Amino acid sequence: MFDDNDVDRKICIICSKGTLDMAYPGLVLANAALMEGCEVDLFFTFWGLDMITKSEMAYLKWSPIGNPHKMAMGNMQMGIPNAVAGLPGMTTVATTMIKREMEKLEFPEIPEFLEMITDAGGRLYACKLSTDMFKLEEDDLYEEVEGIIGATDFIEMSEGAQIIFI
Amino acid sequence: MFDDNDVDRKICIICSKGTLDMAYPGLVLANAALMEGCEVDLFFTFWGLDMITKSEMAYLKWSPIGNPHKMAMGNMQMGIPNAVAGLPGMTTVATTMIKREMEKLEFPEIPEFLEMITDAGGRLYACKLSTDMFKLEEDDLYEEVEGIIGATDFIEMSEGAQIIFI
Amino acid sequence: MFDDNDVDRKICIICSKGTLDMAYPGLVLANAALMEGCEVDLFFTFWGLDMITKSEMAYLKWSPIGNPHKMAMGNMQMGIPNAVAGLPGMTTVATTMIKREMEKLEFPEIPEFLEMITDAGGRLYACKLSTDMFKLEEDDLYEEVEGIIGATDFIEMSEGAQIIFI
Repeated sequence: MFDDNDVDRKICIICSKGTLDMAYPGLVLANAALMEGCEVDLFFTFWGLDMITKSEMAYLKWSPIGNPHKMAMGNMQMGIPNAVAGLPGMTTVATTMIKREMEKLEFPEIPEFLEMITDAGGRLYACKLSTDMFKLEEDDLYEEVEGIIGATDFIEMSEGAQIIFI
Repeated sequence: MFDDNDVDRKICIICSKGTLDMAYPGLVLANAALMEGCEVDLFFTFWGLDMITKSEMAYLKWSPIGNPHKMAMGNMQMGIPNAVAGLPGMTTVATTMIKREMEKLEFPEIPEFLEMITDAGGRLYACKLSTDMFKLEEDDLYEEVEGIIGATDFIEMSEGAQIIFI
Repeated sequence: MFDDNDVDRKICIICSKGTLDMAYPGLVLANAALMEGCEVDLFFTFWGLDMITKSEMAYLKWSPIGNPHKMAMGNMQMGIPNAVAGLPGMTTVATTMIKREMEKLEFPEIPEFLEMITDAGGRLYACKLSTDMFKLEEDDLYEEVEGIIGATDFIEMSEGAQIIFI
């Protein structure tokens, strides 16, 4: 009666990092998947909790550390070797420059991006173990978060889904 | 005769990091998946090998670097900007504080966590390329590890599974 | 007429990191999956773009930061605590030592590895948002890259695939 093509495609994204460079991939993929008609759940754990914590979500930083990467920024070459990346101020410099670049590309900031995702039907969940560890309550979290759930709830929810751990 | 619902759900987790913050997510997910009746295989590669190396597994450290994150630890706010995170001693400070926090939450240490997982039927495998690179033999690994296998073995083993790369 | 076993297994790997330790896992898995007869697509985003950028791909570095790991290198023990890892020169030291180790194991360098993968039928794609952000054009990319595609294209392409985010 039903064939496989009728089954909705489901994507579960686990966001475990709190730096901008690893926050955006999850949001970009979630947004794209929603545009393609997939069901999308995001599960925020460990450092990823920052993405949905009211006091943190607007202040995520770009991390140049661990990315010994020469970035072409506009007409300027920004080379950040690991040693320099560890010096005071470099995170701030990198964050400011890249935020400017992303504004030019009309990239939404994290809070606006989350709103786009929930408006499109994406659901956000916080990891119970992580909220316990960081002493966070539901009130500390972005108001569109559906709730705080455990790892076994996540496993149940992700049955049949493509799981993407970021 | 059989329909798809009879097919066991299978989860394969690749653990590639050697810091506590990225070791725990794999173990928590593995444990939750086993509790939900899934078949679970863990494949340890690159820095993740530390999680199953006898001489290392009890001494993993929390990594504050790359996570410019303000953590609420008990009543104390611990802000670790990248620059400070790179200073001598900060890894140790963060590790001690967070270990204390995790003890309060009755989080098992890595070796105990692995034992829970294998007791529940989870299987542990080490990546051959990585053991060759780090000059490790089976004797150097946690005794519950099933064996050292190659990447093609992993691909065969993960057919039909949800793959989670951490 | 056809049963599920006739459906080709498909693996989509997202490469988001630009350090050797996180570049190799994607290439090793892609290569293994191709050897096992899977269809393989690689999608390079954020720092992972370095892996397919002509001016960068031969110069990726090993990142000791965030991996407070004691590595057995030949007969030499190399301990790199986070604090030391942040000092000038340590990335270079680690990269040189590990490259030597990988040569002994006859590990191909990144450009040769990519060639093996495309020769075996693997397809490489660059992420449009990331190329825009880093001001890269198709001409800046490794010639075997199929093209620059958006996140929604990636979602379409990965329908029915096992997705591995690295």
